[in-house]
Amino acid sequence: MAVTDLAKSRDFYRDAVGLVVTEETDDTVYMRGLEEAAHHSLVLEQSDTAQARRVGLRVRSDDDIRLAEKFFSDNNIEHQRVERAYQGATLQFRDPVGTLMELTSEMAVAPRRMQRYDEFKSGAPQRIDHFQVVTYDVRKATDFWTGLGMRMSEYTAEDGTDELWGSWMEIKGNTHDLVFTNGRGPRLHHFAFAVPDATSLIHAADVVGALGFGNEIDRGPGRHGISNALFLYLRDPDQHRVELFNTHYQFIDLETPPIRWDVTDPRRAQLWGMPASRRWFFEASEFPDEPVREPLLTANPDTLEDYLGIH
Amino acid sequence: MAVTDLAKSRDFYRDAVGLVVTEETDDTVYMRGLEEAAHHSLVLEQSDTAQARRVGLRVRSDDDIRLAEKFFSDNNIEHQRVERAYQGATLQFRDPVGTLMELTSEMAVAPRRMQRYDEFKSGAPQRIDHFQVVTYDVRKATDFWTGLGMRMSEYTAEDGTDELWGSWMEIKGNTHDLVFTNGRGPRLHHFAFAVPDATSLIHAADVVGALGFGNEIDRGPGRHGISNALFLYLRDPDQHRVELFNTHYQFIDLETPPIRWDVTDPRRAQLWGMPASRRWFFEASEFPDEPVREPLLTANPDTLEDYLGIH
Amino acid sequence: MAVTDLAKSRDFYRDAVGLVVTEETDDTVYMRGLEEAAHHSLVLEQSDTAQARRVGLRVRSDDDIRLAEKFFSDNNIEHQRVERAYQGATLQFRDPVGTLMELTSEMAVAPRRMQRYDEFKSGAPQRIDHFQVVTYDVRKATDFWTGLGMRMSEYTAEDGTDELWGSWMEIKGNTHDLVFTNGRGPRLHHFAFAVPDATSLIHAADVVGALGFGNEIDRGPGRHGISNALFLYLRDPDQHRVELFNTHYQFIDLETPPIRWDVTDPRRAQLWGMPASRRWFFEASEFPDEPVREPLLTANPDTLEDYLGIH
Amino acid sequence: MAVTDLAKSRDFYRDAVGLVVTEETDDTVYMRGLEEAAHHSLVLEQSDTAQARRVGLRVRSDDDIRLAEKFFSDNNIEHQRVERAYQGATLQFRDPVGTLMELTSEMAVAPRRMQRYDEFKSGAPQRIDHFQVVTYDVRKATDFWTGLGMRMSEYTAEDGTDELWGSWMEIKGNTHDLVFTNGRGPRLHHFAFAVPDATSLIHAADVVGALGFGNEIDRGPGRHGISNALFLYLRDPDQHRVELFNTHYQFIDLETPPIRWDVTDPRRAQLWGMPASRRWFFEASEFPDEPVREPLLTANPDTLEDYLGIH
Repeated sequence: MAVTDLAKSRDFYRDAVGLVVTEETDDTVYMRGLEEAAHHSLVLEQSDTAQARRVGLRVRSDDDIRLAEKFFSDNNIEHQRVERAYQGATLQFRDPVGTLMELTSEMAVAPRRMQRYDEFKSGAPQRIDHFQVVTYDVRKATDFWTGLGMRMSEYTAEDGTDELWGSWMEIKGNTHDLVFTNGRGPRLHHFAFAVPDATSLIHAADVVGALGFGNEIDRGPGRHGISNALFLYLRDPDQHRVELFNTHYQFIDLETPPIRWDVTDPRRAQLWGMPASRRWFFEASEFPDEPVREPLLTANPDTLEDYLGIH
Repeated sequence: MAVTDLAKSRDFYRDAVGLVVTEETDDTVYMRGLEEAAHHSLVLEQSDTAQARRVGLRVRSDDDIRLAEKFFSDNNIEHQRVERAYQGATLQFRDPVGTLMELTSEMAVAPRRMQRYDEFKSGAPQRIDHFQVVTYDVRKATDFWTGLGMRMSEYTAEDGTDELWGSWMEIKGNTHDLVFTNGRGPRLHHFAFAVPDATSLIHAADVVGALGFGNEIDRGPGRHGISNALFLYLRDPDQHRVELFNTHYQFIDLETPPIRWDVTDPRRAQLWGMPASRRWFFEASEFPDEPVREPLLTANPDTLEDYLGIH
Repeated sequence: MAVTDLAKSRDFYRDAVGLVVTEETDDTVYMRGLEEAAHHSLVLEQSDTAQARRVGLRVRSDDDIRLAEKFFSDNNIEHQRVERAYQGATLQFRDPVGTLMELTSEMAVAPRRMQRYDEFKSGAPQRIDHFQVVTYDVRKATDFWTGLGMRMSEYTAEDGTDELWGSWMEIKGNTHDLVFTNGRGPRLHHFAFAVPDATSLIHAADVVGALGFGNEIDRGPGRHGISNALFLYLRDPDQHRVELFNTHYQFIDLETPPIRWDVTDPRRAQLWGMPASRRWFFEASEFPDEPVREPLLTANPDTLEDYLGIH
Repeated sequence: MAVTDLAKSRDFYRDAVGLVVTEETDDTVYMRGLEEAAHHSLVLEQSDTAQARRVGLRVRSDDDIRLAEKFFSDNNIEHQRVERAYQGATLQFRDPVGTLMELTSEMAVAPRRMQRYDEFKSGAPQRIDHFQVVTYDVRKATDFWTGLGMRMSEYTAEDGTDELWGSWMEIKGNTHDLVFTNGRGPRLHHFAFAVPDATSLIHAADVVGALGFGNEIDRGPGRHGISNALFLYLRDPDQHRVELFNTHYQFIDLETPPIRWDVTDPRRAQLWGMPASRRWFFEASEFPDEPVREPLLTANPDTLEDYLGIH
């Protein structure tokens, strides 16, 4: 993430969110969750402009990097090897809807901190879990990523049509690693860290409030129907959004079908409680060098609020 | 509480809130919290009109009832002894702002259910804790009740004035038994049951959602600055409001001053997160035979939303 | 509490238990719970010998101190006024079973820290709740304290006799402020701080473990039948014992009878799980200048383990 | 699991543990966790003798079954196709240390109940997670299973030797699917279900206590050093052992080395609190038609209790 005040952002993610600082330089801070042995799962980079610079995913080995390279070449997808500190072979590319992605096959190992309970802060985020990207074409994004091996666990669609409004896809065995939802995009809606329990979410909210960031909760605590996640969304000092959540479910067995939600069913968005704020629905972080396009699907303006679950 | 569909309301308070049914007749249901040895702390009465019939408080003994009777006579406050099933000596009166009150000195004893964990439902509410009344004159209400022996633990006031906008008063040793806030009144804003922990609140919200009442949460989960309560507010089938909450604090030592909050400080209302819904601010339950009056204090219409913390 | 290494004990109570340091001098550390506005609820004093120096209770006002003084004089109970920093009128006495007590009517006010969630540590103890004293004569202790106005909420007795084995007494409206149990005494078994929820207890245990004090948990987490407390007991560096607990219940209404438990019923000690360690049963902190006497009631050696619930 | 009183065991797993009954016949009960879409993850079978009949693992597809069949044939491992209701292709075999295993590639789909919060009971177990088997030869078991594709996440070994005392292996991306520990075997030590949070464990213990099974907790709540699991172990009416637990960690990245624990380090067994009961250490469920052998590794009798962490 490109941030405009590195020290301020580091403090936010360390003290208000609870991440661990693995290492910092003049212009970069490497952070990770408490249980992570990976050197970093969040990288903050000092910049003049706040942006979502890239979305990173792990692959298992160098062979996977080479297979990806071949696939991108065969399919005329622009890509390049890049050097990244503390990472093994690293490959950058844009997916067909313009999301700037980075794959790596290895990372420097750092000690897990999950048993240093005396150092836990705020929500005690354990590990990065997933990304949500707003896109102008959910169908195109979904076809690309399922073609690469991701599997759809849940999706939203409009009654009587096959149009996809949102798509939750996974590779690691629970509900989502990568989510695309309909809207002006590409923009990064949020990245999410898993926390141990509901009390962690409440404690995170309390800490955020005590630190004076109480207004930066733009949704939650609440329960999504989709994925069953108990969630809390925070805006960082550049208005990038981070989700703390838990209780999504295991999704491994191949015979289990994805769950379909009607895009007008408010329970897909929250099983209970108050709807998201407008900020949550309409604001997201742009990627560098990639124009934001209007979505292919548009809601009837008269019923927009119903679509969104805003009452 | 007067309710228009007794069975439906009983089911709501038993299954969605988690109260225990002590006893029911054709037109009345007596309920209590899990740890309560008192026969009832909530009475539902079948009626054509939904209303808050009266607010009940316990006194220690018959002597207290007699002292109250004398005090009311000496001060020309209308009052009367009434007969109530399962209650000892019972005295009804209206306080100076029209709240219909009932005091009793004794109650039939029922077995505590706090160790029947296998029967816990939803939020596992343990005991009734407090009432909040909307009144047109917070100062008058406060003077009356502190004169009767209640002690103010926290209050809201306008900067530069002594006008009281809200008053939290207690007799049992924690932050509040009776709360008055400024608005059209008298109306009962809510009654509150204490739950064991934050997880109980989240589970209550989940159960409420699973039972199809998800939209009936009109505020929370959130944390009030005032009283430090972690709260969840639900509307019952007649739109009466019940709060589930925990973590207010002990308030016994006489040298501790009450906490003052500026009525325009949004942290008084929530330390974090989204503001209350309009429903929460403006809707409440009327008392029988008591006209609702406009409040003496009125906010500048231009800044109403700021006063309320609605953004 | 007299401790032999003041810095070490301060660190333990601050970092492993989670108390706040109000103030420290060369030989004394004043601590309190997060929600407490009282200057101190735990005082550590540097000493050559680890001891429980005195058990402190609050009274409401100087009048109560004077009434106590008169009562002690009338009943030939040794007592004396003492000067204590940050306390108002303070009166020391020994109860009839040798417990060294201190009453005070006022205390310097310190800011409540309950909303400084960013500073919470370990179990986030909110306030001191009660003391448990091992005594050679539970009946004598109970008669004295109920005579002073305490009320018994629960007790243990032997089947077929009226012998009291343990007595839980309260003045503040929940199950216990002062507990006496049968054994070699007087010795202070533990003092207890209330925590917000079950997760606080688990987090406290995790923090204690992370700090290397894992073996100093000598009981719990578990649930007492008596008082319904969810508990965790820790030994400090001098082997003084502190309890973190929550969920005891309100006990105000005068018509509610105390609960009787048979001293041989293992559920009185734990509703579930493994019995206490021998350390928990037999070790406690001695008071200064007071000989420890053998208990009047003794269990049949053959069934001692059954009495204790050790299996 | 073979049980001697089917109705009693069903009630235990439904009411005390919180599993869902998918289906029952005269002699079989099929159960699953709340989030599971698989028809069953626990099968109870009426029998004259209590036994662990087999340990089941899922494979992805029929191809995996065929590959396994070929591997077993090539390696002279006794195996057979069996017919199981509600399962696809099913293959039974004994691993080299005598554990009776069953693989299946498909299962009938049942509705997930994870959002029926109103029906949650006790610990709200979400899904089966892992099995622990006591074996006479941990090394042999480990070599076999890692050869089949499992990966070791943690292990216990004796200082100065390479002898394996315990081995935690996984395939699904967190710490363990299959655990072998040294002792008289093969015997099934326990099977484990994941619960949502720490509060679920405490509530399960409370429910178990309320139902009169409080003594059937033979360990916990506590925190294992190994795998970081917060655990509670229960014995069913036939003394089969089930674990409820949460918070083990993600284990996917190939560069992360397994964690080594010295078998004499008590923190491997519990980061805090009291040691396991003797029942927990020495009792387990036998498999049919498979003799129990003495372990190859034996602790010095003088220090057995130290090895076990019993103090």
